[in-house]
Amino acid sequence: MIDKELQTLIEKLSKLNTSSMSEKDFFLTWEQSDDEIDAVFKTADILKRMRENNISPRIFDSGLAVSIFRDNSTRTRFSYASAANLLGLAVQELDEKKSQIAHGETVRETACMISFLTEAIGIRDDMYIGEGHTYMKEVADSLDQCYNEGLLHSRPAMVNLQCDLDHPTQIMADTLHLINHFGGVENLKGKKVAMSWAYSPSYGKPLSVPQGAITLMSRLGMDVTLAHPEGYGLIPETEAIAEKFCKQNGSTFKKTNSMKEAFENADIVYPKSWAPFSVMQKRTELLKTGDEKGLIELEKDCLAGNANYTDWECNEDLMKKTKNGSALYLHCLPADISGVSCKQGEVSEQVFNKYRNLTYKEASYKPYIIAAMIFLRKMKNPSVKFEELIRLSK
Amino acid sequence: MIDKELQTLIEKLSKLNTSSMSEKDFFLTWEQSDDEIDAVFKTADILKRMRENNISPRIFDSGLAVSIFRDNSTRTRFSYASAANLLGLAVQELDEKKSQIAHGETVRETACMISFLTEAIGIRDDMYIGEGHTYMKEVADSLDQCYNEGLLHSRPAMVNLQCDLDHPTQIMADTLHLINHFGGVENLKGKKVAMSWAYSPSYGKPLSVPQGAITLMSRLGMDVTLAHPEGYGLIPETEAIAEKFCKQNGSTFKKTNSMKEAFENADIVYPKSWAPFSVMQKRTELLKTGDEKGLIELEKDCLAGNANYTDWECNEDLMKKTKNGSALYLHCLPADISGVSCKQGEVSEQVFNKYRNLTYKEASYKPYIIAAMIFLRKMKNPSVKFEELIRLSK
Amino acid sequence: MIDKELQTLIEKLSKLNTSSMSEKDFFLTWEQSDDEIDAVFKTADILKRMRENNISPRIFDSGLAVSIFRDNSTRTRFSYASAANLLGLAVQELDEKKSQIAHGETVRETACMISFLTEAIGIRDDMYIGEGHTYMKEVADSLDQCYNEGLLHSRPAMVNLQCDLDHPTQIMADTLHLINHFGGVENLKGKKVAMSWAYSPSYGKPLSVPQGAITLMSRLGMDVTLAHPEGYGLIPETEAIAEKFCKQNGSTFKKTNSMKEAFENADIVYPKSWAPFSVMQKRTELLKTGDEKGLIELEKDCLAGNANYTDWECNEDLMKKTKNGSALYLHCLPADISGVSCKQGEVSEQVFNKYRNLTYKEASYKPYIIAAMIFLRKMKNPSVKFEELIRLSK
Repeated sequence: MIDKELQTLIEKLSKLNTSSMSEKDFFLTWEQSDDEIDAVFKTADILKRMRENNISPRIFDSGLAVSIFRDNSTRTRFSYASAANLLGLAVQELDEKKSQIAHGETVRETACMISFLTEAIGIRDDMYIGEGHTYMKEVADSLDQCYNEGLLHSRPAMVNLQCDLDHPTQIMADTLHLINHFGGVENLKGKKVAMSWAYSPSYGKPLSVPQGAITLMSRLGMDVTLAHPEGYGLIPETEAIAEKFCKQNGSTFKKTNSMKEAFENADIVYPKSWAPFSVMQKRTELLKTGDEKGLIELEKDCLAGNANYTDWECNEDLMKKTKNGSALYLHCLPADISGVSCKQGEVSEQVFNKYRNLTYKEASYKPYIIAAMIFLRKMKNPSVKFEELIRLSK
Repeated sequence: MIDKELQTLIEKLSKLNTSSMSEKDFFLTWEQSDDEIDAVFKTADILKRMRENNISPRIFDSGLAVSIFRDNSTRTRFSYASAANLLGLAVQELDEKKSQIAHGETVRETACMISFLTEAIGIRDDMYIGEGHTYMKEVADSLDQCYNEGLLHSRPAMVNLQCDLDHPTQIMADTLHLINHFGGVENLKGKKVAMSWAYSPSYGKPLSVPQGAITLMSRLGMDVTLAHPEGYGLIPETEAIAEKFCKQNGSTFKKTNSMKEAFENADIVYPKSWAPFSVMQKRTELLKTGDEKGLIELEKDCLAGNANYTDWECNEDLMKKTKNGSALYLHCLPADISGVSCKQGEVSEQVFNKYRNLTYKEASYKPYIIAAMIFLRKMKNPSVKFEELIRLSK
Repeated sequence: MIDKELQTLIEKLSKLNTSSMSEKDFFLTWEQSDDEIDAVFKTADILKRMRENNISPRIFDSGLAVSIFRDNSTRTRFSYASAANLLGLAVQELDEKKSQIAHGETVRETACMISFLTEAIGIRDDMYIGEGHTYMKEVADSLDQCYNEGLLHSRPAMVNLQCDLDHPTQIMADTLHLINHFGGVENLKGKKVAMSWAYSPSYGKPLSVPQGAITLMSRLGMDVTLAHPEGYGLIPETEAIAEKFCKQNGSTFKKTNSMKEAFENADIVYPKSWAPFSVMQKRTELLKTGDEKGLIELEKDCLAGNANYTDWECNEDLMKKTKNGSALYLHCLPADISGVSCKQGEVSEQVFNKYRNLTYKEASYKPYIIAAMIFLRKMKNPSVKFEELIRLSK
């Protein structure tokens, strides 16, 4: 039974063109081909089934999986550790506070020094606009150079665990949840998704989740509506990408300043707070100059701004407006739940409780998405490797 | 030789009723049946022998062992890491300072998020009276719920690494030491143990060790004497449990305010400092309200109180009063040794030096006790599994 | 091909007398025999080749590799983690801030408590003159005692990850780089090496690298010149050792206060900053007494002293003076590069850029050197074990 299901998935994977995946890192979903995106979903599903059936997907006998977290994290930290462990790697954190890595030391040197026996590097760097993705590319280029010059025996797989532009492990986990929930990626075509800003009493939440959502969901043929109060726009480049994908797919990309409008007849809703792009830009400048006073000012202003929109809460009234009143609610967690984790937040307790288990299910895909990204970066013939692993397990 | 010894232990294990162990966590020894307690001892002994004879007890191909330490720890941290590693798991610490886990985030969500590929969770939470055990049960209930709702593929084994009520991994390690020292659990019947308070210049040591000791040792048929200065009583519930067990066993449970009386003719002495229950209750309140000034006051008062009892020191004069002057000295380490780690402490240098190696031996059982708890929680047929592991090693 | 190369190395290893290596730790290169030093180089080369050819050198099924870092570290931390992982061990850090280990607790107790299932312990302790090596020996003696008394089933391999006297994993990695660069250890005989102080705007860099260099390189038959400004001498004991080795080998050991003189006709240059021995002694005293003011004074004085020697920079003019203007440049990294990591530093940007990749190559040997030290400490018949591992991989 499992054999047959696995076999079907592996056959589908074998038909995808994954030949360049072992040569490039997974930083932004829009840099990947359709087949490559699909291969990650299929590989994650295969890995999940293998584990659930005690078939070891351990492809490494030894090796480190380095993690660099420039922002706090529980979910992503545990997902990365789980993915690394599943494939046979040991996590070694590069804690820049514990280490000699100062600004003066070149990224290139550090990248090489931590990589001699390393098979994967995961980075979370989402605090500064214009920085996270740039930093990851710098690390990637350094690794390429060191590898090409014979200084590294193997080129570590890099995984973007969240940057200023995209949050691919989150969004692909969210989307794999959609695929399995709606019974196949083909069923996502024509679905209407509302990616909406929601009120939160906290401040400075990154833009990468909504940006990741509109760019990937538009690509899979969904009608995307982006809703936020005026002034809370995303990085324009990412909105343009979503628009382009919708045009290609003959689907629609709409922007609105009304949460209600976005929810109207939606199949899927993703209500989540974020900081306005303009605030993030100012914040980046202030952080760079170390302007503590300016940062406090900005936070005050921003929270005051947010406070105008406390009615941007995903509640039962709004949910009633969705398709059959039963759109699927998504969240990357933790959600700011009104009356639970804060006085007034992104979602009412009633709505969240109804969807709680589904959001946990959504989160459960992340370790497998991360493992899939590493697997595809390191295995030239992923389907052949899977067949070998299954054979070995018998 | 080893084969025969192992075979005997495995046969004994196979005769114990362990059928519910894979369904419940190991939080308090008094919640476990006699067979279940015995199974942990047997399994720990089997694991120790296997390792010492290079027979791999690795039952997991991959998986995380999460640790949550709400109090500092060296011994327990290393014991847990050793146990996890022995069985094939990788330790991942949940550091609540590094993570997004604030008080607002529900325990249930966190429990689920860290458990998607997790096989064990160990928690140490002994600072607040009325909290540690409650918290562990909350995590356990959350895991059950998530598992029952299909959100987790496997239910992680939870291990109590010390709570406000009990310290089962410590006390069972202490007791396995007694079993091996006295040549069998049956030889512990009728032995007289003195669980005695002892003076320490530090303050606020948890109650879980003496509580764990009197409840488990009374159960195994020992005559238990609990000695402490007036006002230094344990949580009444645990004293009642010890009394009940003694009654069942026809052994005695005595309380005294004289260390000397407790030592009189004792086979085993466990002199160790702890904070009075009433102080711990006050402290819990003050910690909850964040009353820094009150905490300093309380510490001052408590240390002044302790200072009345500096003569509660386990020294050679006292040891002479024990059975043949040679009772076995127990300590969970580190001990406050007079003239070594402090001016005046729990035990004189002479006494400690005489028993030093034996206390190290006592400590050496802890990794195996922890591994045994995980093993029994995860393996439905432990003896069958052991036989398989031994077969595979050949 | 690889088989033949590996076979040759293993045969060479089998002819070395390594019989005492499983009984002693690797603390100071000058405590090891010539064969033992050579065995580390050979074993490191074998391990590197095995990994690069997917032959698993995993000798442990489970077990901890404890690390104790009393100073910050990225390179050494990652090298140790890589080495441990390569051999099958899980790293467990002993963080003395997180743990109960205070000064009052004896080293012996801690050593035993962390070692019940531990196969390796790596320590970095280079801050205090007269302390690091002494501390390591104390730990080693404690482990021996615990092992001999039957408290530990296995004696963990200890590795000196840098002490006040020597930095053997660094220097042996540097030297293995030389061996492979010059085509064999026999080709190092008669080579002229300049171990030179260089200017750095930072302060208090340890002496262990230059001390390690002059003692090991003199031993391998090189002509060693130690250059530094007046007053920047090393611990006299180590200079005496270098002198003795040169005498034995008929090579020369020179001291000079001129960087230029040292570079004259050198085959190898190692320009690196360090703090004068006398300053380190004073600093040790001040740190011990916690004299914050004195420490600030000392730093100010020392930096003012350094500032007299900003011309001690390894630049192209100086490099032209070396053998054919093309001596091999060594550095343990990170280097203070003028105009890059600081205004004025140990090496000019031009020189560093020319040798950058070679310094990365130099660093790449460290994980294998550490793994070799553990391997040789734990395997009584290293060559036989290697043959078994190769057989198993087929």
